[in-house]
Amino acid sequence: MTASPAPLATDGAPLVVPVPLAGKAYDILIGPGLVARAGAEIAARFGAVAVTIVTDEAVAAHHLGPLAESFAAAGLAHESVVLPPGEQTKSFASLEHVVDAVLAQRRERGDLVVALGGGVIGDLAGFVAAIVRRGMRFVQIPTTLLSQVDSSVGGKTGINTPRGKNLVGAFHQPSLVLADTATLTTLSPRHVRAGYAEIAKYGLIDDPDLFAWLEANHGAVTGLDPAALAHAVAASCRAKARVVVEDEFETEGARALLNLGHTFGHALETATGYGERLIHGEAVAIGVALAFRFSAQLGLCPPEDAARVAAHLHAAGLPTRLSDVPGDLPDDAALVALMAQDKKVKRGKLTFILARGIGQSFIANDVDPAAVTAFLGTERGR
Amino acid sequence: MTASPAPLATDGAPLVVPVPLAGKAYDILIGPGLVARAGAEIAARFGAVAVTIVTDEAVAAHHLGPLAESFAAAGLAHESVVLPPGEQTKSFASLEHVVDAVLAQRRERGDLVVALGGGVIGDLAGFVAAIVRRGMRFVQIPTTLLSQVDSSVGGKTGINTPRGKNLVGAFHQPSLVLADTATLTTLSPRHVRAGYAEIAKYGLIDDPDLFAWLEANHGAVTGLDPAALAHAVAASCRAKARVVVEDEFETEGARALLNLGHTFGHALETATGYGERLIHGEAVAIGVALAFRFSAQLGLCPPEDAARVAAHLHAAGLPTRLSDVPGDLPDDAALVALMAQDKKVKRGKLTFILARGIGQSFIANDVDPAAVTAFLGTERGR
Ligand SMILES: NC(=O)c1ccc[n+]([C@@H]2O[C@H](COP(=O)([O-])OP(=O)(O)OC[C@H]3O[C@@H](n4cnc5c(N)ncnc54)[C@H](O)[C@@H]3O)[C@@H](O)[C@H]2O)c1
Ligand SMILES: NC(=O)c1ccc[n+]([C@@H]2O[C@H](COP(=O)([O-])OP(=O)(O)OC[C@H]3O[C@@H](n4cnc5c(N)ncnc54)[C@H](O)[C@@H]3O)[C@@H](O)[C@H]2O)c1
Ligand SMILES: [Zn+2]
Ligand SMILES: [Zn+2]
Repeated sequence: MTASPAPLATDGAPLVVPVPLAGKAYDILIGPGLVARAGAEIAARFGAVAVTIVTDEAVAAHHLGPLAESFAAAGLAHESVVLPPGEQTKSFASLEHVVDAVLAQRRERGDLVVALGGGVIGDLAGFVAAIVRRGMRFVQIPTTLLSQVDSSVGGKTGINTPRGKNLVGAFHQPSLVLADTATLTTLSPRHVRAGYAEIAKYGLIDDPDLFAWLEANHGAVTGLDPAALAHAVAASCRAKARVVVEDEFETEGARALLNLGHTFGHALETATGYGERLIHGEAVAIGVALAFRFSAQLGLCPPEDAARVAAHLHAAGLPTRLSDVPGDLPDDAALVALMAQDKKVKRGKLTFILARGIGQSFIANDVDPAAVTAFLGTERGR
Repeated sequence: MTASPAPLATDGAPLVVPVPLAGKAYDILIGPGLVARAGAEIAARFGAVAVTIVTDEAVAAHHLGPLAESFAAAGLAHESVVLPPGEQTKSFASLEHVVDAVLAQRRERGDLVVALGGGVIGDLAGFVAAIVRRGMRFVQIPTTLLSQVDSSVGGKTGINTPRGKNLVGAFHQPSLVLADTATLTTLSPRHVRAGYAEIAKYGLIDDPDLFAWLEANHGAVTGLDPAALAHAVAASCRAKARVVVEDEFETEGARALLNLGHTFGHALETATGYGERLIHGEAVAIGVALAFRFSAQLGLCPPEDAARVAAHLHAAGLPTRLSDVPGDLPDDAALVALMAQDKKVKRGKLTFILARGIGQSFIANDVDPAAVTAFLGTERGR
């Protein structure tokens, strides 16, 4: 990681981050203009496949037309399914609806599901691709910063149920990811900031140089400066790809580090109903700040590092405290109970990603729920 | 394959067929009394897991009590979900219902889903296990002959949709299969015969000695003679395991041979509504007979072999002709259209398993739909 990013190639060629998974390696292309090139990229790699585009209304308004045009220009048969935007679209009902649409379009196993949208669309469409005919190919075209740096890479797909977030799904790798950074110009600044939280997370996990670069350059990234943006997205994808290759199915632990901030974060999202009150990246920002302060309270991490983390997230316009969540939250015990329903539970003990400092995160498998309850009490000033 | 089966071990130990899949090898135990031993077998292999038993009302009436007792005796926490019997249980609605029950019981990733029932329950419960928390362990306790020789082995799980059979699902291997042959004594003779069709299929694919043994011993098998039954089930499981190990995800062709009789069969099941009018194994029996006669008509297979196949299935009490299906069927073109919606389609051509003789089946990827329509015309005597 250098203090100034490598410039984008002057010929406009995208940055390429390979994900070298045995038997299912794929590339992530990063840069502006990839929606317009999608048809050509897909035809060159997969031939004359038929495509089902899955997207949401907000994304469709800006980007579906150009994508469909690029498929038409490449001679690819394509139809689309447009869903309402929002987390509630990651449901069994949408799953059944999209599955039916793909089958109605008579897509075969070698055909393509293309996810055009943020993490909601990517997770849902990827899960559809995983289960229709027991597995179709799919391509991610992430259009939020969060999905470009996180959810579109790594093959975790799924939906929510009334009992919790992402409790149902599959590991199903995309065959290609096209991260068109120019699509972010139509994204709300709030969602740009939320995605930024995940970029900061990669620095905090194991890359202190990236974190230092972000401290100096976060304004350029969230201001959508093309070179800074591509640099930050590529650094994030490289970090995620490394972990995914090491632990594809999240069984060996390595991948669990990506959950820094997420055990706290998911509990807050559940408590606030996965809605506009608190969006995923904001919950992660609070979760990351809490994880560092919890680590400091346990004597694991210097309090200065926890303060530096919170200061940076705050400077990037992100929330860092429970009290930053608008409206009332459940009490401490209820929040801890929500964490215990989370996936990352082993026989009654909680699993958290804690830190010994910036860029020094580790997996703590044996966290006592009572210690978490006590910590939340301190956070609320009791 | 010998003319007389090896006797069951006198100490009552089950036959064991290993499925040596890299990284997820498992055993199939075959013999009477395995329901009563299930708790001990599971505790010995997986430790103190918590279990969700998925079953149907008809199976529960006979076998749920003993299974629950065996779990209790082994100290395993267990709860059950009992569904209505029948093919319509392989639906999105049941999937959502069982997923919710498993989550309500707070099962974790290392816990166990146990399928107690026929192929309907096995396919559904296996799919639930595949997608809850992106993959839980599961154990198959098949209670129909069909599920003991076919559906419980190999990891294909899934549900139907209004657009077709098994169009949605996952490859998810069980961690153990307990084929308790004594459970078949409560199964209707019609379903015993239907399961027998899949046993005959293994002989017809590539094991002429097994087919000859069945010609001599089918009465003992369908009469549930313990030694003949265990021999036939084990031979079938060995044949299926061999193909599954060669081609786990049905991408390389080898596994497609298992579809002998199934392209015709699925079309007939769709046409008759997956119901009591024609059950799966009966549809397969007709499909196998049709595949051999179609092969003969194409000049690929001696007509005598096709006649011998039909004679044997008929002797075992199975249907072998379209006219054996009670009630009206769609016309030839409509039946072929149903085959084209089947999974085994590549770019407009149909894939059939055809045969050069008994035990000499092969994959034909390029079958012209018009040739099938013409063949169906001959079958109906036009
Ligand atoms: N699979 C994974 O590994 C993984 C990782 C992290 C997060 N996630 C999931 O991702 C989801 C959150 O993703 P998200 O933040 O991208 O949410 P999102 O998909 O809901 O997108 C946020 C909002 O922005 C809109 N939008 C998206 N792109 C736009 C664009 N270019 N212009 C204008 N509007 C646009 C959407 O319509 C939506 O309203 C959560 O469900 C989370 O669980 C998954
Ligand atoms: N996954 C695979 O590889 C695979 C392979 C072949 C078939 N299948 C699927 O299997 C299904 C058919 O399986 P099936 O024939 O076992 O059907 P099934 O599960 O519906 O069982 C048949 C009937 O017998 C009853 N029953 C089951 N066991 C009994 C017992 N011991 N005593 C009394 N009644 C009992 C059931 O309640 C049901 O009414 C189809 O859905 C088919 O698609 C899957
Ligand atoms: Zn996240
Ligand atoms: Zn079958």
